[in-house]
Amino acid sequence: MEENLLRSPDLKDIRITDAFWRKRIDVAQNISIDYMWKAINDEIEGITPSGCMRNFRIAAGLEKGDFYGFQFQDSDLYKWLEAVGYSLQTKPDSELEARADSAIDLMEKAQLDDGYLDTYYIIKDIGKRWTCLRDMHELYVAGHMMEAACAYCKATGKRKVLDIACRFADHICTVFGPGEGQKKGIPGHQEVELGLLRLYGVTGNRKYLEQAKFFLDERGQQPCYFDTEAADRGEKKETYEKAWSRVQGRDLPYNYQQAHKPVREQKEAVGHAVRCCYMLSAMAECAGLTGDESLDAAAETLWRDITEKQMYLTAGVGSQSDGESFSFDYDLPNDRMYNETCASIALLMSAKRLFERLPRSSYEDVAERALFNGILSGISLDGTRFFYCNPMEVWPERAKRRADMHIDTVRQGWYGCACCPTNVLRTLTGLGAYIWSRKDDTVYLNQYIASEARISLPGGDTVLELKGSYPYSGKMTLTVREAASLNLALRIPGWCESFRVSCGGREYERSANGYVYLREAFAAGAVISIELDMTPRKVYCSANVPFNAGRAALTRGPLVYCMEEADNGKQLWNLKMTDSAVSEQRRSEPEEMIALTIPGLREESAEGALYTARKKTVTPKELTFIPYYAWCNRGEGEMQVWVRDE
Amino acid sequence: MEENLLRSPDLKDIRITDAFWRKRIDVAQNISIDYMWKAINDEIEGITPSGCMRNFRIAAGLEKGDFYGFQFQDSDLYKWLEAVGYSLQTKPDSELEARADSAIDLMEKAQLDDGYLDTYYIIKDIGKRWTCLRDMHELYVAGHMMEAACAYCKATGKRKVLDIACRFADHICTVFGPGEGQKKGIPGHQEVELGLLRLYGVTGNRKYLEQAKFFLDERGQQPCYFDTEAADRGEKKETYEKAWSRVQGRDLPYNYQQAHKPVREQKEAVGHAVRCCYMLSAMAECAGLTGDESLDAAAETLWRDITEKQMYLTAGVGSQSDGESFSFDYDLPNDRMYNETCASIALLMSAKRLFERLPRSSYEDVAERALFNGILSGISLDGTRFFYCNPMEVWPERAKRRADMHIDTVRQGWYGCACCPTNVLRTLTGLGAYIWSRKDDTVYLNQYIASEARISLPGGDTVLELKGSYPYSGKMTLTVREAASLNLALRIPGWCESFRVSCGGREYERSANGYVYLREAFAAGAVISIELDMTPRKVYCSANVPFNAGRAALTRGPLVYCMEEADNGKQLWNLKMTDSAVSEQRRSEPEEMIALTIPGLREESAEGALYTARKKTVTPKELTFIPYYAWCNRGEGEMQVWVRDE
Repeated sequence: MEENLLRSPDLKDIRITDAFWRKRIDVAQNISIDYMWKAINDEIEGITPSGCMRNFRIAAGLEKGDFYGFQFQDSDLYKWLEAVGYSLQTKPDSELEARADSAIDLMEKAQLDDGYLDTYYIIKDIGKRWTCLRDMHELYVAGHMMEAACAYCKATGKRKVLDIACRFADHICTVFGPGEGQKKGIPGHQEVELGLLRLYGVTGNRKYLEQAKFFLDERGQQPCYFDTEAADRGEKKETYEKAWSRVQGRDLPYNYQQAHKPVREQKEAVGHAVRCCYMLSAMAECAGLTGDESLDAAAETLWRDITEKQMYLTAGVGSQSDGESFSFDYDLPNDRMYNETCASIALLMSAKRLFERLPRSSYEDVAERALFNGILSGISLDGTRFFYCNPMEVWPERAKRRADMHIDTVRQGWYGCACCPTNVLRTLTGLGAYIWSRKDDTVYLNQYIASEARISLPGGDTVLELKGSYPYSGKMTLTVREAASLNLALRIPGWCESFRVSCGGREYERSANGYVYLREAFAAGAVISIELDMTPRKVYCSANVPFNAGRAALTRGPLVYCMEEADNGKQLWNLKMTDSAVSEQRRSEPEEMIALTIPGLREESAEGALYTARKKTVTPKELTFIPYYAWCNRGEGEMQVWVRDE
Repeated sequence: MEENLLRSPDLKDIRITDAFWRKRIDVAQNISIDYMWKAINDEIEGITPSGCMRNFRIAAGLEKGDFYGFQFQDSDLYKWLEAVGYSLQTKPDSELEARADSAIDLMEKAQLDDGYLDTYYIIKDIGKRWTCLRDMHELYVAGHMMEAACAYCKATGKRKVLDIACRFADHICTVFGPGEGQKKGIPGHQEVELGLLRLYGVTGNRKYLEQAKFFLDERGQQPCYFDTEAADRGEKKETYEKAWSRVQGRDLPYNYQQAHKPVREQKEAVGHAVRCCYMLSAMAECAGLTGDESLDAAAETLWRDITEKQMYLTAGVGSQSDGESFSFDYDLPNDRMYNETCASIALLMSAKRLFERLPRSSYEDVAERALFNGILSGISLDGTRFFYCNPMEVWPERAKRRADMHIDTVRQGWYGCACCPTNVLRTLTGLGAYIWSRKDDTVYLNQYIASEARISLPGGDTVLELKGSYPYSGKMTLTVREAASLNLALRIPGWCESFRVSCGGREYERSANGYVYLREAFAAGAVISIELDMTPRKVYCSANVPFNAGRAALTRGPLVYCMEEADNGKQLWNLKMTDSAVSEQRRSEPEEMIALTIPGLREESAEGALYTARKKTVTPKELTFIPYYAWCNRGEGEMQVWVRDE
């Protein structure tokens, strides 16, 4: 069923040895999984309450009480369980498995006979289920359950959770569809499409694929289902439009949910960024699985709008705080965007699925940008503190203005809407899926994450081992551990101006799609040498973006850098870079890393007045930059990515 | 009763001959007064409806219908009537007077027997009057009625409107006060204090002064009256706090209304900027009239916080869009503030009253900054289009983002909340009050607005005539038309680095308070020559303000300049000034003015990518600036005050 798509090896066949990522995965597996389990069980003092597991116990009839939290609170368990599923595939842990099984038992007890499972409606009023897809996230929650079930079943071989998910999916396939008596519903928050596609992948049952496609095809059709169901509820359309006018943006109603137009007619990314990128992921995957060319083209169009006109340097998306949403092209303010961690993860997921249908390095360049910057900044180095928003600059006092209060200036222990922490967790424990891809006898190395991979080829398995100290060093070796005849494709990152890929004295060139292909019969032990130039570089932003005029950012390899108050003092806006060369500085705080320094200047007022004709004084000042992902691990302070540049 | 204060001559004794301002006053008197009368009578097609006069007709029993508009809609008539009162003092107009009399007749018919007059409650439910001072603006409306009555009575000698206002004021003095059975109420929007002080000035009745002082003294006391009356209404405090959390800002509840602390304890300007500056005006005037030193010191403290840390270059105030309010010190974003036209007018009013108790040029510097920039930008050159917000830079597309939709990119014909148009109108028709002040035998020339003034001195009247072409020329003459012995004080503006004041061959120096004093026995026809250096200057903003780092603004004399798209093309952010000299360019579009030009540079992207390591290309480009007050008289387009500076 997947013959047209490039697929990754199973997680169990990948062993990540990478110094940079291993540390983070270890923290995720050893600390964050436990921390988040306790968080959703309300066992941690001093953080925002969750209520998630208590809701399940109440729904299962094991405890009395009312539902607590957001209507999508169940998804916190599901994303945690998905992360556990990935973790167990590479690191068995019977205690953790027992915890997960206990949660699955609760799910089973809470599930209704017809397969429905959403603790909000089970506790509140089951008669009202499926009456407000627009707002109530039942399908979103269902999608996360399906993703979790597939991951956990794959890890443990236990079918119980998969059966629960299939029962819910079957219920959904009965309630929603084009047939008579079925609701032509669409999810208010896309995600169920991805869950159904996973279920299709695991079960091979084509109806799940068709149901996913139904949800995509139905989206944006007229009359809009959100209006239909609102009328059924007796709700006036104006009431909603008025209440949501602040987030619905400039276009038609429902652009927040990308339901303003059929998906094939959406040329610009609008509305809630996570919704949009989950939808884009599903569009790309569905297009690849079904050969639907118009869906494929629409996915490509949305992708290009996002990545060429609406994406931050860190692969953050969602530049408009109202509605955590996309804005118009080139509207990329540095200090008041959302850049939700989940949105960068969703963009990573889109990149992977777009690549799987058409191997181009540009997709994986965005994936890399997201992994090393916009996603990793969402979790503290110690694995227990999280960012929901990931701004390009922070002036802590300003973030206390009402309009900017969505910007946290220090990572938080939990959130009322805690979508991001577990989303990062499942990304880190499932990281192996982003490194290698295969189709026929071609193996793609997409992300330079040191690892050993067993990969099935038409002529038998091979084992490939990538070694190196990426992202701080660009020198790597790829060893073919078992003799094999294959076509190896290595991504040359878009940021890399000079590279060298060689094997046995022969050098290889980059192809049009950004990959270097080596079609060889490799002997066991054959070594491919890879060198990517990692000279630190100033990066400039398109002149169409007002906010970065006169500024540059420092990058080195895939890493975006930033200045922090801890290294540079207050009022970072008064610092500017000179034209001098950038130096590298190996340091151990806040962790082992290569910092960058550049001779710069510091401006100060010539006098105390608010306005004066006296020019500012300028003194030399060395500027220090650390990688963006590591910012805010030394307390609250200013931060700036785009820095004035002489 | 006013012996301690510096006071301005009556408007009828001032004849404004100034080319710059005469044009605007003529437009105000010949076009805007008529336009606004028609607007509040709903006689203009295609603009936002008002309903103001219709409300009065309904309240007067002459028409059936429901109240329309905001609860403070009456104030639009009152500010119009105040403007008419000023206009008639210098330009009799029987037709206009008849219109005003017809409105006053309506007011009389609508007024209740006990003096109460607010069409909202008279039409809606009179039983609910005075139950929600926090939100319902009855005292605000009353204050504007009193100001209007004083102006109109002074112009025409007709007492009817003054009697109406005194009846309302007497009613208010009965209902509110410290006595038994009286409510310890405070206005939710300050203004009645100013109305009462005017009424005190016209009637000499000290109870109006005492009532104004009561409202100031009671403000911020505990328990807060807003809570008391809310409890009486059966309203939960939490309901209000939740609904208003977005505008109440960081501090306690009611900082939006400056009722979070007693006025004498308020060290920083917070909350709604117009409310704050009306309050400050009343504090300064009350302090001067009563000799209350703690009130005086509190006014000075607030003034300094505003003008030294929270004021835009144009004398705009209210940098936070939520709540149209002050923010924290140095938080002065260029593109998303409020800078309500009314707030700059309120700041002008504060400046005048602070000056009247203590003559210092710094107050009048701010008054000048407001008059020539932040206020004048609020009205189009043709007198029929208005800005509510006055930003420092505009990118029209961005102003369509939800969070920035309060920023109009073209002036509007009217507003649902139409406070600003009539406020500008009363400022322009009453402009004469801002030029001269007198105390004992000292005459202060505060604003260089060419005019002839008859001024009473202890030894008899004198007539002074200022001639010149300010603000475009700094050369002026002041002629003493009738022989007089007096102490002349001429303000040397803070922006002026070099000046010359001479009379009969003698030159005069600036005193510590920023004025040049000439104590002389002037013969009839004596001429004082004034020369203020008007070389265009780059102005820099304090390094404490992040938003203007690396930028400068061009000014010339009192005028702040800006770049417009009409002169410089799109993407103004890619333009920067060089260190070259600024040139002056006399031009006639959008009106007769001196524009400024400076050699500059234009940056363009080296390639189409959103991010690139290729440096931008730079080409020479002459930059053209026009005065800020004149911006947006040539259609919609970008505008920028603070420009990148090499």
